[in-house]
Amino acid sequence: MTLGLIAGGGDLPRAVAESVRAEGRGVFVVALRGMCGDWASDFPNTMVALGEPGHALKALKNAGATEVLLAGRVERPKFSELKLDAKGVMVLPRVIAAARQGDDALLRVLTNLFESEGFRAVGVAEAAPGLVAREGALGRLVPNEDHKADIARAFAIVRALGALDVGQAAAVCEGLALAVEAAEGTDAMIARIAQLRDNLRGTRDKKRGVLVKALKPTQDAKTDMPVIGAETVRRAAEVGLGGIALEAGKSLIVDKRAVAAEADRLGLFVVGVLP
Amino acid sequence: MTLGLIAGGGDLPRAVAESVRAEGRGVFVVALRGMCGDWASDFPNTMVALGEPGHALKALKNAGATEVLLAGRVERPKFSELKLDAKGVMVLPRVIAAARQGDDALLRVLTNLFESEGFRAVGVAEAAPGLVAREGALGRLVPNEDHKADIARAFAIVRALGALDVGQAAAVCEGLALAVEAAEGTDAMIARIAQLRDNLRGTRDKKRGVLVKALKPTQDAKTDMPVIGAETVRRAAEVGLGGIALEAGKSLIVDKRAVAAEADRLGLFVVGVLP
Repeated sequence: MTLGLIAGGGDLPRAVAESVRAEGRGVFVVALRGMCGDWASDFPNTMVALGEPGHALKALKNAGATEVLLAGRVERPKFSELKLDAKGVMVLPRVIAAARQGDDALLRVLTNLFESEGFRAVGVAEAAPGLVAREGALGRLVPNEDHKADIARAFAIVRALGALDVGQAAAVCEGLALAVEAAEGTDAMIARIAQLRDNLRGTRDKKRGVLVKALKPTQDAKTDMPVIGAETVRRAAEVGLGGIALEAGKSLIVDKRAVAAEADRLGLFVVGVLP
Repeated sequence: MTLGLIAGGGDLPRAVAESVRAEGRGVFVVALRGMCGDWASDFPNTMVALGEPGHALKALKNAGATEVLLAGRVERPKFSELKLDAKGVMVLPRVIAAARQGDDALLRVLTNLFESEGFRAVGVAEAAPGLVAREGALGRLVPNEDHKADIARAFAIVRALGALDVGQAAAVCEGLALAVEAAEGTDAMIARIAQLRDNLRGTRDKKRGVLVKALKPTQDAKTDMPVIGAETVRRAAEVGLGGIALEAGKSLIVDKRAVAAEADRLGLFVVGVLP
């Protein structure tokens, strides 16, 4: 049973593809042009532009895929510049209307499109359960009491923002909200913590504060769970954060062994919690 | 009846001092060291460090002030490095406990300190009513229907964030949350919109999206109303925003004439709304 993987940017799609292949299943990658990395050539694949859903559907059917999974970052197109195939022309009005309501509505429309063509839409947790964050610490360090209070506050912030479809992440240091994610994405959000005066935040030598990343209540866990990897740990360490907390069961970790090793090397905790 | 103005950073304290003086009242400025600008020397003043509330109280009493107003940005001190006078030693534990709960709690403790010494704490709206944003547009332009939808969404975001004492501002462009303010402050938040790909946002030539700044529900309008000035209009124009919306009656505009002129020159609207 082949999985059709519609792959955007970032490390998640490759991690999913490798995890699915490691379990002996076939994977066919629909690589989104300009977003999906070169790794797609390690798998049977086709490349499509965002305006070509007809092309994607045909390739998936030819490959014998019965399930589809959307994974990775998809950048909002300039709708006026999209090159459309016939199917694209048909669905564009719905897509534009959904885009105005936010990223989550946009993803739901795309998922519905594949389902209406007879595919079953699956989530990462189902296709690649090894990537899902579990409760407890990964690596040697655990949050202290200050960290726990900051984790609770950051979860409250992410939940409030998520309910409005704003972002997935926030950083808090001893009660102060250091940074909150909107359209810039988590990496840029973490990086700008370095701009804050260093009595508000930790440093590489004396780490303080936490990063929390969590599913938005409006988000479909099938298409868009929060993801971290070893690079996220390095970025958090760089700006002096003491650790990272994720919602257990509802977020993903690419290469858990590498994340644990990097957390131990840099002196951060990485923890899955049930908030 | 002399007003004691405890002045932090930014343009607000000076605007308040000049507005109060223009109405024929006396002003005595307690300039916070390292935060308040040089303008304080235009008024009877004393300079105090954050750890010297005893010094501030004495100077205010000597100056015959009966009312006090805290205005402007106050940066969180490194409590371990504060040089304290006797009064500072007494109140420090309360201040540190409040600081852990956020900026608003911190300001409330400071206000309470002055009230317990017999001063009446007043707000900017009372001391300098000319600075308060009124309903309607300042300048020639008004928001269109797209802008109005973005204003409503940005107010919802700011309100949710404000309830958690995170920040006062957000920028939204055609439904997409471009940026949300936390510890970095509004200027830095606006500036980073320039980093987003230009199909997500407007440009100087074709402006799109709005900035909204509003009082946090946890905030005391006496001490910490949101403020904009001509510089805010220039920054918003620079990153391609179409306009700025404020909550009428609960936000401040430094130099309304200059703000209207700058908005007209750059092609933005500035509007007070009752959300």
